[in-house]
Amino acid sequence: MRVIAASTRPAKITRRALAKQQTREKVLLAARQLFTERGYEGATIRDIARAAGMSTGAVFASFADKSELFGDILTADHAALTEAMSDAAQGKTTVDSALMAMFKAGYDFHYPQLPLFAAGVAVSWTWTESSEQRNREAVRPIRDLILQQLRAGVERGELVERHDMRLVASTLWDTYVRSYRRAVFDGWSSDDLQTLLRDQVALILAGLRA
Amino acid sequence: MRVIAASTRPAKITRRALAKQQTREKVLLAARQLFTERGYEGATIRDIARAAGMSTGAVFASFADKSELFGDILTADHAALTEAMSDAAQGKTTVDSALMAMFKAGYDFHYPQLPLFAAGVAVSWTWTESSEQRNREAVRPIRDLILQQLRAGVERGELVERHDMRLVASTLWDTYVRSYRRAVFDGWSSDDLQTLLRDQVALILAGLRA
Repeated sequence: MRVIAASTRPAKITRRALAKQQTREKVLLAARQLFTERGYEGATIRDIARAAGMSTGAVFASFADKSELFGDILTADHAALTEAMSDAAQGKTTVDSALMAMFKAGYDFHYPQLPLFAAGVAVSWTWTESSEQRNREAVRPIRDLILQQLRAGVERGELVERHDMRLVASTLWDTYVRSYRRAVFDGWSSDDLQTLLRDQVALILAGLRA
Repeated sequence: MRVIAASTRPAKITRRALAKQQTREKVLLAARQLFTERGYEGATIRDIARAAGMSTGAVFASFADKSELFGDILTADHAALTEAMSDAAQGKTTVDSALMAMFKAGYDFHYPQLPLFAAGVAVSWTWTESSEQRNREAVRPIRDLILQQLRAGVERGELVERHDMRLVASTLWDTYVRSYRRAVFDGWSSDDLQTLLRDQVALILAGLRA
């Protein structure tokens, strides 16, 4: 009897947890689409609930507010991006080719949802300190991947550690993020951005060449 | 008689133009304060009109919408900043000291109104193409000042033109803008930012040293 009860209970919890998870995913999917179409300010929780086919109360049962919902989308994207960038850098034998493969993976990832990317950068300038901390945690693995490639370049004798490598990684990441302005406002293609970024990577690494 | 009429008319127009100008300035002053306190999204035209002591109709007589009002503030700031940076670079005899004097003038200018600066960067990621074009026009003289200092460095034999100097100027400007995140989210002082930026300028210029 006890054994049956014990084995039934986790199953019930799992079903409930599964339903909750499915609700979250429906909300996130609807929110992602609306943020992409209307930007962060243009999409309300009411719009998102309607698009997901549920009440605003059901949305609030899963997310404290719009900012948490948006933060969850950004965090999920950063996790997916970390994986895509890590895969892309595999087997590359120079710093430049590894970094450019990573950044290309980033462009491939964000190009289909450029307005969402722009909304993410926009919101990141005015959100709360806790949102900022959360986002830094999500971006850190990507900066670490960049740092790893720089250190591999030093080990191969391609680069010399003349500057703080964390600062170099940050400067590269910032330059990559900034490059999206050309996509958003000038309609530049991913190839155009890669050409621009290749020059900027060359500039930033120039003083570190062995 | 005609002479008197001719001389009176411009005076009338001038009085009217002066009144219109004073209204604009009152609105801009109130708007600047509210955008600084509440951010771009948080301040409505209604709030701004009330703070300026006039009707929303009177505000709309001077500005088409909130975005135009905000754009006017940014444009005025960029013009003032161009002058402050130009003055700061006067008499500096090295590229690094000239650039750092310019960027220090920038920090001095924006520190008293950091939330307004952050709101400006935030909005710049999601505004219209015409706002973007307008802002680029306003920022161009600052990028030109940076470019001028790079060229002066080449003339003095400090730097060698190994990269597209416009790209170098853009990369420096982007890095300067990005540095404000440390002020906004980590409470870094202007001195802290200058230390960080000095390292980044050294990194970016390293490959151009003669």
